[in-house]
Amino acid sequence: MPTSLLPSTPTTTTPPDAARTARLLVSCRDQPGIVAAVTTFLRDHGVNIVQSSQYSTDPWGGRFFLRVVFHLPADGEPIERLHDAFASDIAAPFDMDFTLRAATPKRVAIMVSRYDHCLLDLLWRAGRGELPMEVGVVVSNWDDLREETERFGVPYREVPVTRETKAEAERAQLAILGDGRYDLVVMARYMQILTDGFLRQVGCPVINIHHSFLPAFAGAQPYERAKDRGVKLIGATAHYATADLDEGPIIEQDVVRVSHRESATDLTRLGADIERTVLARAVQWHCEDRVLVDGNSTVVL
Amino acid sequence: MPTSLLPSTPTTTTPPDAARTARLLVSCRDQPGIVAAVTTFLRDHGVNIVQSSQYSTDPWGGRFFLRVVFHLPADGEPIERLHDAFASDIAAPFDMDFTLRAATPKRVAIMVSRYDHCLLDLLWRAGRGELPMEVGVVVSNWDDLREETERFGVPYREVPVTRETKAEAERAQLAILGDGRYDLVVMARYMQILTDGFLRQVGCPVINIHHSFLPAFAGAQPYERAKDRGVKLIGATAHYATADLDEGPIIEQDVVRVSHRESATDLTRLGADIERTVLARAVQWHCEDRVLVDGNSTVVL
Amino acid sequence: MPTSLLPSTPTTTTPPDAARTARLLVSCRDQPGIVAAVTTFLRDHGVNIVQSSQYSTDPWGGRFFLRVVFHLPADGEPIERLHDAFASDIAAPFDMDFTLRAATPKRVAIMVSRYDHCLLDLLWRAGRGELPMEVGVVVSNWDDLREETERFGVPYREVPVTRETKAEAERAQLAILGDGRYDLVVMARYMQILTDGFLRQVGCPVINIHHSFLPAFAGAQPYERAKDRGVKLIGATAHYATADLDEGPIIEQDVVRVSHRESATDLTRLGADIERTVLARAVQWHCEDRVLVDGNSTVVL
Amino acid sequence: MPTSLLPSTPTTTTPPDAARTARLLVSCRDQPGIVAAVTTFLRDHGVNIVQSSQYSTDPWGGRFFLRVVFHLPADGEPIERLHDAFASDIAAPFDMDFTLRAATPKRVAIMVSRYDHCLLDLLWRAGRGELPMEVGVVVSNWDDLREETERFGVPYREVPVTRETKAEAERAQLAILGDGRYDLVVMARYMQILTDGFLRQVGCPVINIHHSFLPAFAGAQPYERAKDRGVKLIGATAHYATADLDEGPIIEQDVVRVSHRESATDLTRLGADIERTVLARAVQWHCEDRVLVDGNSTVVL
Repeated sequence: MPTSLLPSTPTTTTPPDAARTARLLVSCRDQPGIVAAVTTFLRDHGVNIVQSSQYSTDPWGGRFFLRVVFHLPADGEPIERLHDAFASDIAAPFDMDFTLRAATPKRVAIMVSRYDHCLLDLLWRAGRGELPMEVGVVVSNWDDLREETERFGVPYREVPVTRETKAEAERAQLAILGDGRYDLVVMARYMQILTDGFLRQVGCPVINIHHSFLPAFAGAQPYERAKDRGVKLIGATAHYATADLDEGPIIEQDVVRVSHRESATDLTRLGADIERTVLARAVQWHCEDRVLVDGNSTVVL
Repeated sequence: MPTSLLPSTPTTTTPPDAARTARLLVSCRDQPGIVAAVTTFLRDHGVNIVQSSQYSTDPWGGRFFLRVVFHLPADGEPIERLHDAFASDIAAPFDMDFTLRAATPKRVAIMVSRYDHCLLDLLWRAGRGELPMEVGVVVSNWDDLREETERFGVPYREVPVTRETKAEAERAQLAILGDGRYDLVVMARYMQILTDGFLRQVGCPVINIHHSFLPAFAGAQPYERAKDRGVKLIGATAHYATADLDEGPIIEQDVVRVSHRESATDLTRLGADIERTVLARAVQWHCEDRVLVDGNSTVVL
Repeated sequence: MPTSLLPSTPTTTTPPDAARTARLLVSCRDQPGIVAAVTTFLRDHGVNIVQSSQYSTDPWGGRFFLRVVFHLPADGEPIERLHDAFASDIAAPFDMDFTLRAATPKRVAIMVSRYDHCLLDLLWRAGRGELPMEVGVVVSNWDDLREETERFGVPYREVPVTRETKAEAERAQLAILGDGRYDLVVMARYMQILTDGFLRQVGCPVINIHHSFLPAFAGAQPYERAKDRGVKLIGATAHYATADLDEGPIIEQDVVRVSHRESATDLTRLGADIERTVLARAVQWHCEDRVLVDGNSTVVL
Repeated sequence: MPTSLLPSTPTTTTPPDAARTARLLVSCRDQPGIVAAVTTFLRDHGVNIVQSSQYSTDPWGGRFFLRVVFHLPADGEPIERLHDAFASDIAAPFDMDFTLRAATPKRVAIMVSRYDHCLLDLLWRAGRGELPMEVGVVVSNWDDLREETERFGVPYREVPVTRETKAEAERAQLAILGDGRYDLVVMARYMQILTDGFLRQVGCPVINIHHSFLPAFAGAQPYERAKDRGVKLIGATAHYATADLDEGPIIEQDVVRVSHRESATDLTRLGADIERTVLARAVQWHCEDRVLVDGNSTVVL
């Protein structure tokens, strides 16, 4: 076998305070010495690397992506100081985009219309600690899911939307969601198109779940169109919302097998299971700072 | 979105001579500073990291695994010198198991009995350049697959095995396979049990494909037993061969859906497709130095 | 193409009263003329076949299985008369086992311990009409899931079980579940072994979800053992409960891919998603009278 | 459990001459009494049903599909007589499209360009008896795969195609493929578009494999476009060829998971495995007379 290994001796050492876990995300032009520079910097600041993943679109002048999870010593410098030192010592000379922040739960807002399956699955997973996030509010253009939501102790805000009141509704939504209150907005089958203006002003990433295997069946009625086309698999796609509907960077997709026997209604029911699973994975990866955007694609580290 | 990224500027730089690509595999007790030490060492030796993956069973005293793919400068030191420097400067102080070698194709021998599907798939993939290996010989206890093998320009050696001649047969096999001639032996549905002695003397890892989803249906006749048990999925498992039959570290597994309609013969046919796919993946990962053994499990980086 | 077909002309005819839908399940030794006899009988009684599936383990003396869904005319004979006529005219001469009954929702009881994911998924699917069943009671050896259950309008009965009180507890459970009150009992992660006596007295089929891909990891702690063995896929199995623990006829199984990176705790979380999906499918098929038992296997028509 | 079944008593009866197995495919408007009429007809002609599947798009005026596999008695009437009796007694009154023919291997021609994976997989499966077909000829616009093909004992005919000689080339192809010589033409990565005229004149169904999960990435360069779009699964689609490129009725599809790490070249390699698997399944089902066309969809019984 490739390396002959003795059984690991489980020498238990004390892990540091969990609140001092932090994550570094980096992207820059690939060039020699990046990893050595970053890891030497972290070691010199007394930091212990827990996980590290990297990817390069092309080692010869491509784009380089890095995710590092690390622990700060309990008695060490504040994370803000570490951030600023990294900015000047490493990020500037390598011309990096980066974030360096504590691994705290993300503050999340959910938008939904009338289908409950994605919303309930997220609330249920958040409640049992599966997803590192705190859901601060659910915003809907209908009142249907208020009781289900409030049962989880989450405030529910109805903002009706009609063709005439769309601009006004977006202002009301931004009053709830904007001003840096949230780290992420999740469209958990929110059946209204968000305008380019809304996406620019909301001030945080927006994840949408589309009920087809994109780019197949972008737009309305994907299950009906899948039935008409006679496909043998149906799917769901979680992606970052952009001004171009259903065109944003894809985070996760999955499919389920179907046959001629399933009606469009059956497809809708079977698809709901895939939608909630795919959306939960995408939200989890985002909240764990695993997803980096590369043009119109994602790198999931 | 997590990091706002400009489109990558494809600045083409010249990649170095492919023959100078090398791989480093490391395993040791996890402790602070490993990655910084390794990457600084590599940078100081003028090496450019192309890929790097790591894993720790537990950052506080667990087992640490690292795989680095890198390019050596065309005019740099020989890889043997780099190896020795790493041994003394890094591996010794961190008490590491490691290999550091050129990324050359593995020299592979295949053992087979009478089923052709795994053998042909490996020969075909090797021939079209999908697998980084050179098949030096096929050894079989039957003569059936000689013509198929020789067509690919690979020598075929028949070593018949009976209950009485088993010890003698293993000596004959070792005369073909031993003495460091091969980096890997693949049992591509070789239907004889290899003895502990053979495995010790052959001098390189041995990968076996078992026609069930281990640990279910270890031993003989797995498809018949799967039919009897009425399972709804059947599978295949590629693992390193050890003295305990079907108990070695698992490299890859996969399954396919079946129903009551399939007979044991149908399962055998459907399973053959999974066997060849699973074995090809395991062999590929092994030949790319991606598989590290951790006790009775594998870490695939 | 195999048959040249004109587009179907959607001539709408009035479907009969849904309450008059019925299902016929048959098993007997395979022999010529069964299907002609059954379908002629149904036609002569004015019945319209909606779906029909059949399977034979061997057309020459094997076992034959048939499932027919049909509509009775609104003004036709009562289903009890049809049942008795079938018994004398068809079942007796062909020596058939059969059931013929209205396609009404099954009356279901759920047993659970402390894990909520399978229970909540069943209650949620039943509530939105995905599963043709009415959950009449939830029985648990803990009080933890009372509030979650009652929120769905379903009574919750706690029956504590200790080693000493097991016999007494089973009597209490049978007082709730027995006497023909239910068509099906579902063990939705009920972590106690049911005795042979209980299974005989409860008077209806019992479906269990086991948190492994049986026959791998039967018994306790399957996720821990899966982690120890280093498998690359984990699964779940829904089966009819029999006196031999984890040995009953398998209804459905599925798996999800894992790697060395997932801890036993991660496997438990990932497995929960598969458990609830597999159990929901098995319960649905059972409630739709799709599952016939053939020795220790199932035929799902 | 739903029906209590004794273990089947394996009363061995003699199966009839395999050459006397036949298949009946029916499609017509759904209406009461079809199955009773068909099965009574078959029983009255001394035929023994081995398999039977049916499907209705809507029992109230929808389209009905039926596939029956049966054995004719060795001393019974010729199959042509049975066919004509069925035509007048059953097909005419119910206004059915139908075929009734012996279950003999299909005569198949394969068209290919330069990629070998689909061609070799079909030839290998046909050779080992997995696919009920006899490959009579391989037609290619290149000479590359001649040796590989002839090794299987199959004639290889090169018909070069250029933009200028397209019409002439199709005439040459039709001279090889037409006049009822073949029951099926398979485009096993034949990279030229067949004209509407060719499809009409070739006189048998044509199955094509497209290297994407249709309707996503119809047309040229699907793997490059999949990489650009950043999808997380890639697939393949086998469909009947029609004048509208990539728009014909889908027979089978499947997908494989990919990530940002795979280049377009990697996708091409991974996709090749899916292509050959999907095409082999579609060809198998077609040759077993399992595929019925319903508008632009397929019913696979």
